[in-house]
Amino acid sequence: MRLRNVKNKEEILSSCKYLIENPNEYKGKWKELFNNDNPIYIEIGMGKGDFIIENAKTYKDINFIGIEKFDSVLARAIPKISDEIDNLLLIRMDALDIDDAFFKEIDRIYLNFSDPWPKNRHKNRRLSSNVFLSKYDTIFKDKCEIVLKTDNVSLFEYSVVSLSEYGYKIEQIYLDLHSHEEIPNIETEYERRFSNKGDKILYLKATK
Amino acid sequence: MRLRNVKNKEEILSSCKYLIENPNEYKGKWKELFNNDNPIYIEIGMGKGDFIIENAKTYKDINFIGIEKFDSVLARAIPKISDEIDNLLLIRMDALDIDDAFFKEIDRIYLNFSDPWPKNRHKNRRLSSNVFLSKYDTIFKDKCEIVLKTDNVSLFEYSVVSLSEYGYKIEQIYLDLHSHEEIPNIETEYERRFSNKGDKILYLKATK
Repeated sequence: MRLRNVKNKEEILSSCKYLIENPNEYKGKWKELFNNDNPIYIEIGMGKGDFIIENAKTYKDINFIGIEKFDSVLARAIPKISDEIDNLLLIRMDALDIDDAFFKEIDRIYLNFSDPWPKNRHKNRRLSSNVFLSKYDTIFKDKCEIVLKTDNVSLFEYSVVSLSEYGYKIEQIYLDLHSHEEIPNIETEYERRFSNKGDKILYLKATK
Repeated sequence: MRLRNVKNKEEILSSCKYLIENPNEYKGKWKELFNNDNPIYIEIGMGKGDFIIENAKTYKDINFIGIEKFDSVLARAIPKISDEIDNLLLIRMDALDIDDAFFKEIDRIYLNFSDPWPKNRHKNRRLSSNVFLSKYDTIFKDKCEIVLKTDNVSLFEYSVVSLSEYGYKIEQIYLDLHSHEEIPNIETEYERRFSNKGDKILYLKATK
């Protein structure tokens, strides 16, 4: 994602009540923050937030946590949270640290339009590589469930193989998600832009 | 596949030394027919034969068996076997009877451009459905290995899920096989026609 500087980003972040500054303190205890036992779904790389915010508004019985590495991206997402939402939290964190922030409490991970890291020597940086899958093992509560969307064919092919080799079953796969109107779908900003151009959106749900 | 009648098809079939008329007699004993211990790869639905014949010519250390249901299709494949080939046999058989013809002796199954049976009520007729996967279990020697090519997105999506749910791992997947020049690929007649039109060829290799 192109990073554009955002004026007053420190102020936007520090005044955001949804942003948890010290996520590691809540490791294993996120349900206390939400004050209920509802499932917790996280999006790693929430970008400008459309997906996670719209999900939180739509599915009130699920708790959502959006994770983003970059201040300037978070600062563009936060102003979009206009209504009062009590099932949404945000974390500024590198995905590599995810196992420091959660322990056996996550029900689903969303990986939306993740960086494809096209060079083979960078493949371990892909969010569906073994490096991350082994971290995810420690944060899922019971069943592991990953839902992935991308327009990048190579990342998608890599992810199918990586998840499958790791023991996940591919429960759903669509090579043109938007041709399936029967599948509920909340778009990311990126997805809307690329599908408007005619690019096909690739989708899978994998469970273990 | 459109079936076109072939003149003299009975004569073509009866005079073909590659065609095994009574396959069930060789159940568990196909290596005796080939007279060696080489791996046996079969293609279910060999159509007009380009794929299996070219494979037999290219990979001399592998035994190939082409299976086709329709006389008239077989009769169009047989005249293409011009050279002497000792690692190829053909069977006229319905795929449903496959477990009557083989037992623990097959190393790989090719499913090329199989009938997609698009209606949901016909899904058990798809060659990657549980009905067939359970039959394949009985014919594979050790490891199960299925290599599938199709231009049909729905059949491909169905196959990924069906194989994965059945316990197969998706070892390779390509959403545009012909864009990967590094992957050895022998085309079927159908594949050549559709890829020339610009259709993408979907490919997967699954193992269990």
